[in-house]
Amino acid sequence: MTILKYPTNSELQAALQRSNWDYRALEPMISEIFDDVKRNGEEALIRYTKHFDKVTVASITRPLDEEVVLEVNLMQAIDTAFEAIKSFHESQRTIPQPIVTTPGVSCWQRETPIARVGLYVPGGSAPLFSTVLMLAIPAMVAGCKEIVMATPPQRDGSVHPAIVYAAKKCGVTSILTLGGAQAIAAMVFGTDYTPACYKIFGPGNTFVTAAKIYAQTLGIAIDMPAGPSEVLIIADAFANPDFVAADLIAQAEHGADSQVVLLTDSPELCDAVAVALKEQLMNLPRAPIASKALATSCLVVLPSLMACVEGSNYYAPEHLILSVEDPNTLLNAIENAGTIFIGKYGCESLGDYATGANHTLPTAGFAKAYSGVSLSSFCKTITIQNVTQEGLRNLGPTIVTLANAEGLAGHANAVRVRLEELKNK
Amino acid sequence: MTILKYPTNSELQAALQRSNWDYRALEPMISEIFDDVKRNGEEALIRYTKHFDKVTVASITRPLDEEVVLEVNLMQAIDTAFEAIKSFHESQRTIPQPIVTTPGVSCWQRETPIARVGLYVPGGSAPLFSTVLMLAIPAMVAGCKEIVMATPPQRDGSVHPAIVYAAKKCGVTSILTLGGAQAIAAMVFGTDYTPACYKIFGPGNTFVTAAKIYAQTLGIAIDMPAGPSEVLIIADAFANPDFVAADLIAQAEHGADSQVVLLTDSPELCDAVAVALKEQLMNLPRAPIASKALATSCLVVLPSLMACVEGSNYYAPEHLILSVEDPNTLLNAIENAGTIFIGKYGCESLGDYATGANHTLPTAGFAKAYSGVSLSSFCKTITIQNVTQEGLRNLGPTIVTLANAEGLAGHANAVRVRLEELKNK
Repeated sequence: MTILKYPTNSELQAALQRSNWDYRALEPMISEIFDDVKRNGEEALIRYTKHFDKVTVASITRPLDEEVVLEVNLMQAIDTAFEAIKSFHESQRTIPQPIVTTPGVSCWQRETPIARVGLYVPGGSAPLFSTVLMLAIPAMVAGCKEIVMATPPQRDGSVHPAIVYAAKKCGVTSILTLGGAQAIAAMVFGTDYTPACYKIFGPGNTFVTAAKIYAQTLGIAIDMPAGPSEVLIIADAFANPDFVAADLIAQAEHGADSQVVLLTDSPELCDAVAVALKEQLMNLPRAPIASKALATSCLVVLPSLMACVEGSNYYAPEHLILSVEDPNTLLNAIENAGTIFIGKYGCESLGDYATGANHTLPTAGFAKAYSGVSLSSFCKTITIQNVTQEGLRNLGPTIVTLANAEGLAGHANAVRVRLEELKNK
Repeated sequence: MTILKYPTNSELQAALQRSNWDYRALEPMISEIFDDVKRNGEEALIRYTKHFDKVTVASITRPLDEEVVLEVNLMQAIDTAFEAIKSFHESQRTIPQPIVTTPGVSCWQRETPIARVGLYVPGGSAPLFSTVLMLAIPAMVAGCKEIVMATPPQRDGSVHPAIVYAAKKCGVTSILTLGGAQAIAAMVFGTDYTPACYKIFGPGNTFVTAAKIYAQTLGIAIDMPAGPSEVLIIADAFANPDFVAADLIAQAEHGADSQVVLLTDSPELCDAVAVALKEQLMNLPRAPIASKALATSCLVVLPSLMACVEGSNYYAPEHLILSVEDPNTLLNAIENAGTIFIGKYGCESLGDYATGANHTLPTAGFAKAYSGVSLSSFCKTITIQNVTQEGLRNLGPTIVTLANAEGLAGHANAVRVRLEELKNK
């Protein structure tokens, strides 16, 4: 844990440097897996599952029509999260609004679901059903026809009931028991059980991310590239150091490569957070992981809250927590972030599960150009253009001038044949 | 020109097959250019311009503060197009709408401009100022701070005044006189005159597209991959064969690799269009190009208009023209298209220039997953989450259950420390 007080700009930028990873180094391996899966289908998928996941599976799919047994408490909590996520994503529906741009010419946009989507849900020590909710609910709300989900099998080849429960609830149409790059390849090329998908979503390790980037070179859309999860907290003297420390730790426990940063204008708060971190770590089951992540992270004191905002915009965090007395003055100055939490009681773990906002967000500085997953991630926008006789009369001569200036006489002609016909009316 | 009457499904799909191109074959060359530009900057850029464009330039940038002399007629036509495009893209602005997902918890989305964008405007026999309008207007409306434009130099190293006029009008902040893969590399890495861009837009040949795909593997966002331009027309017996032929030709004149398709339920219309095509081609300056494109294209008669819609959804055209008596019944069944023209007087060339809708659209079937360029292409969406004490009380226990089930005790702890504090109030 580095503590920096009043660093220079270049010291700050060095402290906020993320570790790089090299897609190009992984590409040959990913390319080989994709070619193999394309050629050999299920045989290759079973082989890779044995090789990478150390699991021998009889089939790469898991039927969805079997009943699922789940603890009632957990089921109810999933249902609560489901409702919040569903209501926020339903509120993102747009209504086409025709705009008259010239008398007789109107244009509008219509959001249309992507027919076939693939969702990747990482495996790990615990079932990440929250990822199922965050990806499958917007797909369901969008109206995607085929929602394929891939998730690595457990040791016994099965899928955790909480994952299956969430998948069924969210309208997933098929489950592939696959992980890693081979899962992405299976969604790109399709399998005997599932169609080839047009767009692939979801977080994952470097192999999964590299496979998604590789899929893009084949013309498949993806939600975004992904790196390790991260949080940046801007806090002032009014912040509760225990809350700040708890939020930093909650992020740090994700993985040893998680990034956590505190920017504050208060040296006292900085010191108090450092103390609280040590205390809280003692009671954390995942302390070994969190400690590693914290070791490479930093607490930084800057001269003002606006300097903190500038540092945050430079870093472009996945999660930004504004733990300040008056977040609204800072809010408008934030340019780059995946999501922003305001309010003293708003911590990242609320948003990770059940505020309703999506937790699939741009990491690694991608928030400078990418949005998190939302309803529109599962749709494409089609523009519709309606031109009447009046519109053609108004706009036609302009088009003829412009088309001729671009050397496209055929474009001018398409207008001219119509103008000619109108003359005879 | 193939004429197919009542083909089987597989015959139709074969006729709608696009020519493939292999990104992977170009990658080594693109990678070399990128590495060279990254290492050698302007020297490499000038060298590539000499090599590929056969133009020796003294500088890779063109100042924007010089006056531009342009024919008044063309200037006015550009101004008309500018207003229409601006008004449609301004209408796409969204207003953040907080949604209460649980009492005490509200979430909303805020669209925020991408700070640095790069626009590629292809060269060619004529100045493509329409591409400048279509890319720079939404960037300006979005509020992007740095709008870098790259376009290949003319023979004398200059940039056509119509391009410069449009660029100045649309708030472009700097012009690079560069084309091809080296232009994309210059926008990715930045130059002495321009910043590194976070997202790159614009059409181009296979080298430009390959360079954009390569840029994605470096973490740079792009608007979409691009292939040759294309139109699909669905027409019924009420369509005017001269209009249909003119629209097919307008698309075909773009390039020998352009794709044009007619799907109709009327054998008579099909025959009449074939005749009209021959007649109109005789008067077209770009007939040699258009003829090549038409040679690989097809006119298809299908049993019904709904069969035409199915064929179109399979093909996912960049431009779709509904040249039918009642377009509204077909409209809702369209799943995949970049843009749709309805109304007998609505031809693609209107939309190419001045209906206000964007002409930068997904080709090559990418309309299955990608949208055309719009205001939102120049923004990223940040979600904002506001949680009050009441919100924490309502949602806290659910979060604790979910976080523990995912094995993330630190996440549960971040909620618990806050719930504890509330107990003491």
